[in-house]
Amino acid sequence: MARPEPVLRKGRLEAFSDGVLAIVITIMVLELKVPHEAELRALWPVLPVLLSYVLSFLYVGIYWNNHHHLVAAARRINGTIMWANLHLLFWLSLIPFVTGWMGENNFAPVPTAAYGVILLMSAVAYWILQRAILAIEPPDSALRRELAVDLKGMLSPALYLAAIVAAFVAPWIAGAVYFLVAAVWTVPDRRAERAIGARPDGEER
Amino acid sequence: MARPEPVLRKGRLEAFSDGVLAIVITIMVLELKVPHEAELRALWPVLPVLLSYVLSFLYVGIYWNNHHHLVAAARRINGTIMWANLHLLFWLSLIPFVTGWMGENNFAPVPTAAYGVILLMSAVAYWILQRAILAIEPPDSALRRELAVDLKGMLSPALYLAAIVAAFVAPWIAGAVYFLVAAVWTVPDRRAERAIGARPDGEER
Amino acid sequence: MARPEPVLRKGRLEAFSDGVLAIVITIMVLELKVPHEAELRALWPVLPVLLSYVLSFLYVGIYWNNHHHLVAAARRINGTIMWANLHLLFWLSLIPFVTGWMGENNFAPVPTAAYGVILLMSAVAYWILQRAILAIEPPDSALRRELAVDLKGMLSPALYLAAIVAAFVAPWIAGAVYFLVAAVWTVPDRRAERAIGARPDGEER
Amino acid sequence: MARPEPVLRKGRLEAFSDGVLAIVITIMVLELKVPHEAELRALWPVLPVLLSYVLSFLYVGIYWNNHHHLVAAARRINGTIMWANLHLLFWLSLIPFVTGWMGENNFAPVPTAAYGVILLMSAVAYWILQRAILAIEPPDSALRRELAVDLKGMLSPALYLAAIVAAFVAPWIAGAVYFLVAAVWTVPDRRAERAIGARPDGEER
Repeated sequence: MARPEPVLRKGRLEAFSDGVLAIVITIMVLELKVPHEAELRALWPVLPVLLSYVLSFLYVGIYWNNHHHLVAAARRINGTIMWANLHLLFWLSLIPFVTGWMGENNFAPVPTAAYGVILLMSAVAYWILQRAILAIEPPDSALRRELAVDLKGMLSPALYLAAIVAAFVAPWIAGAVYFLVAAVWTVPDRRAERAIGARPDGEER
Repeated sequence: MARPEPVLRKGRLEAFSDGVLAIVITIMVLELKVPHEAELRALWPVLPVLLSYVLSFLYVGIYWNNHHHLVAAARRINGTIMWANLHLLFWLSLIPFVTGWMGENNFAPVPTAAYGVILLMSAVAYWILQRAILAIEPPDSALRRELAVDLKGMLSPALYLAAIVAAFVAPWIAGAVYFLVAAVWTVPDRRAERAIGARPDGEER
Repeated sequence: MARPEPVLRKGRLEAFSDGVLAIVITIMVLELKVPHEAELRALWPVLPVLLSYVLSFLYVGIYWNNHHHLVAAARRINGTIMWANLHLLFWLSLIPFVTGWMGENNFAPVPTAAYGVILLMSAVAYWILQRAILAIEPPDSALRRELAVDLKGMLSPALYLAAIVAAFVAPWIAGAVYFLVAAVWTVPDRRAERAIGARPDGEER
Repeated sequence: MARPEPVLRKGRLEAFSDGVLAIVITIMVLELKVPHEAELRALWPVLPVLLSYVLSFLYVGIYWNNHHHLVAAARRINGTIMWANLHLLFWLSLIPFVTGWMGENNFAPVPTAAYGVILLMSAVAYWILQRAILAIEPPDSALRRELAVDLKGMLSPALYLAAIVAAFVAPWIAGAVYFLVAAVWTVPDRRAERAIGARPDGEER
């Protein structure tokens, strides 16, 4: 009765997610096609691809960081969380594709909007994962209190939506919004950190 | 005498399997060739590849989930299990190849049948791995009782076989069967979950 | 005095090796170029590449298995072992290159010999790693006794050398030797397993 | 009051870093394009790429080794360290790109200088990571004492700078400097090793 839902191991969920995120962040570099010429100007066409690589590296880094905090703060894992996590990884796995498309086309309208769509879907998937984790947290959970007011989580999808529309008018505005949201998120998620700190067994190494 | 067969560590088997599955699930995205045009219609030829990517992402996710449950429920690992596991990883590692072939050829008969062959061989390899794990479980093992009636495990290979034949008549029937079987399997394997719950030391994090 | 040499953590050496081996075994599948035609005969040119993929999958699997046993049996890790391990990973990382070269050229003499050279260098590197681990094992180490007579380890390099020479006369003899040695090694290394069993704290999960 | 800064888990930082470094070290081999000819002379154009691969394998191995020591010696991890670590991984992830560029252009001036720039930025990022870790170490930390005089860490950036300039005059001097610095670093970082040894709970496996 005390364990109505089977409790699965967090370790492999973390290991698999770390693996997928590590590969996603690294294979994007394969889109940086090695130039055939040995001149400095051969790097010019690579520059927008490099810029989109920096942006996506930031985003995957942010997701890894926040994912790390969220799962560390979660007390239990079940089958729903497993699939919510795979759903998040699916959208994040498409980041290299839209990164390459946006970068190789010099931040053209359609690819820049497509990039925003993947960011939006990833944000939605992260929100679903949060809900799935909170659904089996006890009512007095510190994580529950901390995530009650999720300003950044609310605002980001709205900004992605605005950027998707802006991409068709002036793609560079969309790009600026993507960088701005990334800059805001680079600050680690103190709420989950605090939730870890609030647990009686919260001392971690 | 109490340990007639050497007991190996589950940790590295899980870590290596997680690594291979994480790479398999992620390199498939490399088959999504970045279009050179920046128009929305440039995504049209990518759509069947994307559809086959979604299907394969589901299957690798299902195998990771079930593998996770199965190995978590296993009490011991030996050399036979190690090789049965590598055999399973071999067939799963061919999924990106048939995914690309099926997607790039718009679900044509032969590639769609080939996709089913790899799914069939993976299912057989998973069944062998289950047998190898059960072979060294104690007679009263909860996992043994749970896996005694394996309806989904029995039905899937039969459906793959039917789909392989159907692919030569109407490939879209085969594709529908692949999606149907994936949908059925997305429900996590409660049997192994229950076996974990039934173990005296079953409390896991 | 009891710790004259700093003892480093086995965990990350295992994790890094697992990561590299998982990637090596998986990126080889990228050499299986997706055919543009949707006919069965389109698989014909892929067949030798697939055959060389099976061979290399076996070898990387064997190395992972034996590496797993060896490091599990080692009591301590130092800087020399770290570099001996990286040296082994270097040669194994070249396996995808020679696998592709041999497979795409239909087991032609030079690529088939080159494949043998990489197998030979990997075997030498594995031997060096064994020496480095034994160098800091205590004199009464079970691993030391088990590895004293290393028949398979002695014979394999001799067979690789013979195969390298044979490749220039009849490459298929070389291929057969590679498969034969792989078959012999597929039997797990019972010596290291026994060494684990012989340790007082040998009970592992 | 005893825990003013939340303490995060070292495990996932290590796992993610190991994953990224394992992929960086392995995808470089994809730049070794499989020759279409089956003759020994077909390996000639591959030789400079292989040489640059050996060099980069050494550097990533050195960074993995030193990172391993540094993080093992660190007592605590916080958000700043997480981002300093991602910043280091960013520069290291660009190594495959400059490795391919330098190797395919036969160590031409501009790509050889670009290679040095990435090495320089990686060294700077490693130094920042060290500072971030030391910032939350206690005043009596053994790691703090050991890293006080960082001769190799000081000298390497200076040598990279010299090599970047030299690349425009005689690229092979730059290449020689890169190999020289790598040779010096191949000696493991005894300082962090000693810091682990000096900790009361320093006994590690």
